[in-house]
Amino acid sequence: MTQMNLSFYQQRVEQQLQQLLLIKVTEPNPLYQAMSYSLLLGGKRIRPYLVYAVGKLLGAQLNDLDAPAIAIEVVHSYSLIHDDLPAMDNDELRRGKATCHIAFDEATAILAGDALQALAFETLCSHSYQQVSLARQMAMVHMLAQAAGASGMCAGQAIDLAQTNQQVSLDKLEQMHRLKTGALIECSVKLAYYASPIENETVLQDLLCFASALGLAFQVQDDILDIESDTQTLGKPQGSDLKANKSTYPALLGLAGAKEKARQLYENALSALKRLPYDTTELQSFAHYIIARKF
Amino acid sequence: MTQMNLSFYQQRVEQQLQQLLLIKVTEPNPLYQAMSYSLLLGGKRIRPYLVYAVGKLLGAQLNDLDAPAIAIEVVHSYSLIHDDLPAMDNDELRRGKATCHIAFDEATAILAGDALQALAFETLCSHSYQQVSLARQMAMVHMLAQAAGASGMCAGQAIDLAQTNQQVSLDKLEQMHRLKTGALIECSVKLAYYASPIENETVLQDLLCFASALGLAFQVQDDILDIESDTQTLGKPQGSDLKANKSTYPALLGLAGAKEKARQLYENALSALKRLPYDTTELQSFAHYIIARKF
Repeated sequence: MTQMNLSFYQQRVEQQLQQLLLIKVTEPNPLYQAMSYSLLLGGKRIRPYLVYAVGKLLGAQLNDLDAPAIAIEVVHSYSLIHDDLPAMDNDELRRGKATCHIAFDEATAILAGDALQALAFETLCSHSYQQVSLARQMAMVHMLAQAAGASGMCAGQAIDLAQTNQQVSLDKLEQMHRLKTGALIECSVKLAYYASPIENETVLQDLLCFASALGLAFQVQDDILDIESDTQTLGKPQGSDLKANKSTYPALLGLAGAKEKARQLYENALSALKRLPYDTTELQSFAHYIIARKF
Repeated sequence: MTQMNLSFYQQRVEQQLQQLLLIKVTEPNPLYQAMSYSLLLGGKRIRPYLVYAVGKLLGAQLNDLDAPAIAIEVVHSYSLIHDDLPAMDNDELRRGKATCHIAFDEATAILAGDALQALAFETLCSHSYQQVSLARQMAMVHMLAQAAGASGMCAGQAIDLAQTNQQVSLDKLEQMHRLKTGALIECSVKLAYYASPIENETVLQDLLCFASALGLAFQVQDDILDIESDTQTLGKPQGSDLKANKSTYPALLGLAGAKEKARQLYENALSALKRLPYDTTELQSFAHYIIARKF
């Protein structure tokens, strides 16, 4: 397998995110500081990576992928700030550092999340695209709004909260993950498609099958790592799912069953890639990375 | 003065808001219930009114004004939910009813606000416009994102929180209001302009002068009513600004000074309207309503 471009795109997205909030304010501005703190807290940047990797596969201009890559990460970042709040998951540690409401305060964290969501849409619609029609730009904004909202990511978080302290079925757990993280991961692929010159519904559907399997595989692996890894490697307390009384794949399927589930989803992702009329080596490597990762 | 169309447009916006969340969900969905509860809590709907009234003045199609009118009110509605949270203003009463986090819970209120923000952008870019070019539709999305974000409404709320329990200057108070409420009120007028066939920078600037004066007049009157009105009329506790140790115009200028300030702003709004090459009787009446209102 060829070397993935993960680190190349990760560097590109870090640079873009750093530039995003470099504004001149005449006095200290806790709102911008909190937004910047959370945006630059690190992370795997898998959503922007998907925008870049899928976009390049479809012949998009690198410049045309920057805004959707940034926008999707900014939405993800805002959702983490709000998910960590005391009224939600009440987490004090993320990626080995204090969560936003701990580093600043709760009100600033709520506002920073709100302002980041607006910034995502601002980024997406103020970019100078080279080869993306206005109609496809508008489709990107629409996709992002749908994926982020009450029938996407927010619905997933609502189900997650309702499920805490409850034994749930495998179907319900899957539905939660498909909304909470799957919606944005599938949206990454849609954004890449609309930023590219390709107009082929079959290609889009195969890419969505890939993204859907990949997104769920990522979650199953997350649940496995919560049991098998340690706090230092994870950057958050090991065993936090169990502690928070959250349903997980290992809890429902056993550890071996969860690993088998991850392997099946990995195979589904590869099958979807094989149906595409492109060299998908890069994305195959990425799918393997997702289920083989240790943090 | 002619009869304002305020109630006509208020009815139209209520209908549109009611339809917005009429979706089929197979089980009770607290997230949608909380969004719907807050959206339909009533209110003066002055932002959508401005979209409709200014849009009609500029010759826009009524249908083309629906999406921007709804979108701006949805953003306003989300901001109220988050402003009322315990970590922010900690208000339990709004428009005579329990605030969202009291009627539901804090986590659901945070999520409902988040999902409403996404819904505003979804509404704005999924509408079937009759006479608005894609470029102007994109400009509308851009305007709304800017007005809602870290250099607009969110910045205003951050300043408001930082100013609580502090004696602030008149300039600082004005800056806070120009961002916290002024940004969305000016945005209403911008959205109406972009939904219309008019392309005339002078007209836009005069409309923004009108909106800017009107927005601040609204706030000054709010501060006056917090002293002069009563809890039942206001639908929120009378004297809540004083109780929350917030700086107000009457605190800085005295009650008579605040009333004089409101009158000056009203005159500024009328002057801006006089510069427009249209019959602005409707908007003149509205400006008068803003400073003469009792709740």
